[in-house]
Amino acid sequence: MSAVAQRSGQPPRESDPYESRVGTAARIVDRADPVVYASSQDEGPLTREQVAHYERTGCLGIEGLFRPAEIETFVAELERLRVAADEIDPATLIIEPDGRELRSIFAIHEQSRLFARLAADERLAGVARYLLGGDVYIHQSRLNYKPGFFGKEFYWHSDFETWHVEDGMPRMRALSMSIALTPNTSYNGPLLVIPGSHRKYVRCVGETPDDHYKQSLRRQEYGVPDPDSLRRLFDEGGIETMEGPAGKVVLFDCNTMHGSNSNISPLPRSNVFLVYNSVANRLTTPFGGKPPRPEFIATRKSFKEIRPIGGSIV
Amino acid sequence: MSAVAQRSGQPPRESDPYESRVGTAARIVDRADPVVYASSQDEGPLTREQVAHYERTGCLGIEGLFRPAEIETFVAELERLRVAADEIDPATLIIEPDGRELRSIFAIHEQSRLFARLAADERLAGVARYLLGGDVYIHQSRLNYKPGFFGKEFYWHSDFETWHVEDGMPRMRALSMSIALTPNTSYNGPLLVIPGSHRKYVRCVGETPDDHYKQSLRRQEYGVPDPDSLRRLFDEGGIETMEGPAGKVVLFDCNTMHGSNSNISPLPRSNVFLVYNSVANRLTTPFGGKPPRPEFIATRKSFKEIRPIGGSIV
Repeated sequence: MSAVAQRSGQPPRESDPYESRVGTAARIVDRADPVVYASSQDEGPLTREQVAHYERTGCLGIEGLFRPAEIETFVAELERLRVAADEIDPATLIIEPDGRELRSIFAIHEQSRLFARLAADERLAGVARYLLGGDVYIHQSRLNYKPGFFGKEFYWHSDFETWHVEDGMPRMRALSMSIALTPNTSYNGPLLVIPGSHRKYVRCVGETPDDHYKQSLRRQEYGVPDPDSLRRLFDEGGIETMEGPAGKVVLFDCNTMHGSNSNISPLPRSNVFLVYNSVANRLTTPFGGKPPRPEFIATRKSFKEIRPIGGSIV
Repeated sequence: MSAVAQRSGQPPRESDPYESRVGTAARIVDRADPVVYASSQDEGPLTREQVAHYERTGCLGIEGLFRPAEIETFVAELERLRVAADEIDPATLIIEPDGRELRSIFAIHEQSRLFARLAADERLAGVARYLLGGDVYIHQSRLNYKPGFFGKEFYWHSDFETWHVEDGMPRMRALSMSIALTPNTSYNGPLLVIPGSHRKYVRCVGETPDDHYKQSLRRQEYGVPDPDSLRRLFDEGGIETMEGPAGKVVLFDCNTMHGSNSNISPLPRSNVFLVYNSVANRLTTPFGGKPPRPEFIATRKSFKEIRPIGGSIV
């Protein structure tokens, strides 16, 4: 019986290949799931090169998916929501660690008609359906403001590690899409990824404290990979800096190790962030043995299968 | 009589063009000094294009000044000094804000024969003599370790503002050279500069607290430019990210606005940092009316005019 099962009093899950935060030593193991779930016969929305790149590196940048007028609409909605206090559930607002500025709004596909439409857009949802091999839903969504001057760094992490331990996502069959609403430059804290890291899984050290999410959305201390594991992943894959213009879409696998540096530049680094999960991979009891995190962070009850919508958004 | 003179009881310095930290509002004024002090007839160590670039932008990167064997020697000395506790004055060691790792060693031209030799090297000192128009000395020197994983950002600042207010450097006739000892990439917290910012002077808000340097070397809170002034400088000049291989030398004017983001990558960003000042611009009483900072931060008594040394260092 595993330590977690003993602690939580739950029946053991002997076959969990992604156990984490239970031992005193970190460990790197191989991924036990596919990266691309489409069968090779499928006619998909991506080129063969794009699919191969995504499968090999765990990330893919796509420019030109949206027209300038569409991007302008997303930016206008970002600015509107910043001050639309009466439309936004205060629980979904995350403030920068120094308490000065808005960092993120969660559950935007539930709180903004425009971003609900964007999440269902065929250009995004169609890609997610293809790579994840079938029907998908939004596991998590947010607007990231990452303000200029005092935007803080976000340390390396695999989203899946947290989603598995704290939310009960069973397997690696989810992916994230970040739609840039400002230019991403080398100096405004762009997304950094370790290519190839999605093929390994880093078991992290230490137990999860109660109500961990209240801190971890601002600054994570548990579920953090150890420096030795990171150096090994870095030695193999290096770091890719995801620069690009507003409107660029960056896809990355749920287990790709990523993070970002601080942003002292005057230029904010804002984006829409959408996580698609396969309906075959819906959340169960969290594997870490603690109560699940709130609905606005990890869709559980409000699950809605996406029906992709074609055509322009504006 | 100025507010500072009244506060400090010192005779007024009515003509100080670089007064700062005395008012309640920030202000941008023009630089009152040349950038390049060499007369146009001088045969110098830089090309005409390099001089023009430096004069226009306030910074200049030069690759290939040192041979690989020389760079290796600098790196070996960096590593040796990290653990050479018996040779280093503990007062000159600066630790990262989180208290975990060595950030810098100051006064390395006084504590390492190799770096004393480097500071006097014709390839560096000759350039400093040329741009500053005559004899120079080392105002400040340090080794920056900027460790990987947890290297913190360094917010925007003009060095001259601090050197003027806290150290008594009269005019803008000094420059810094950073010699990279690791690659500077987009992701390991490279030096960021605002080109053209050296032609403006931002008067900062707020009085300097006592013994400010003990905090400010780790994290600066006074002598910090306001966001509006920074945005104006950025709108005119943008940001240049100083990437390059180990061994690259970056020069920048004492008043160039610069900073760096955090470094979550495993790759440290280490460099030797040398500040040359004209002997005609030696320190006087600090303009902020407080006692001067210690000798290891701002050379005052241990002043030594540099006699440039030619030939290879190894």
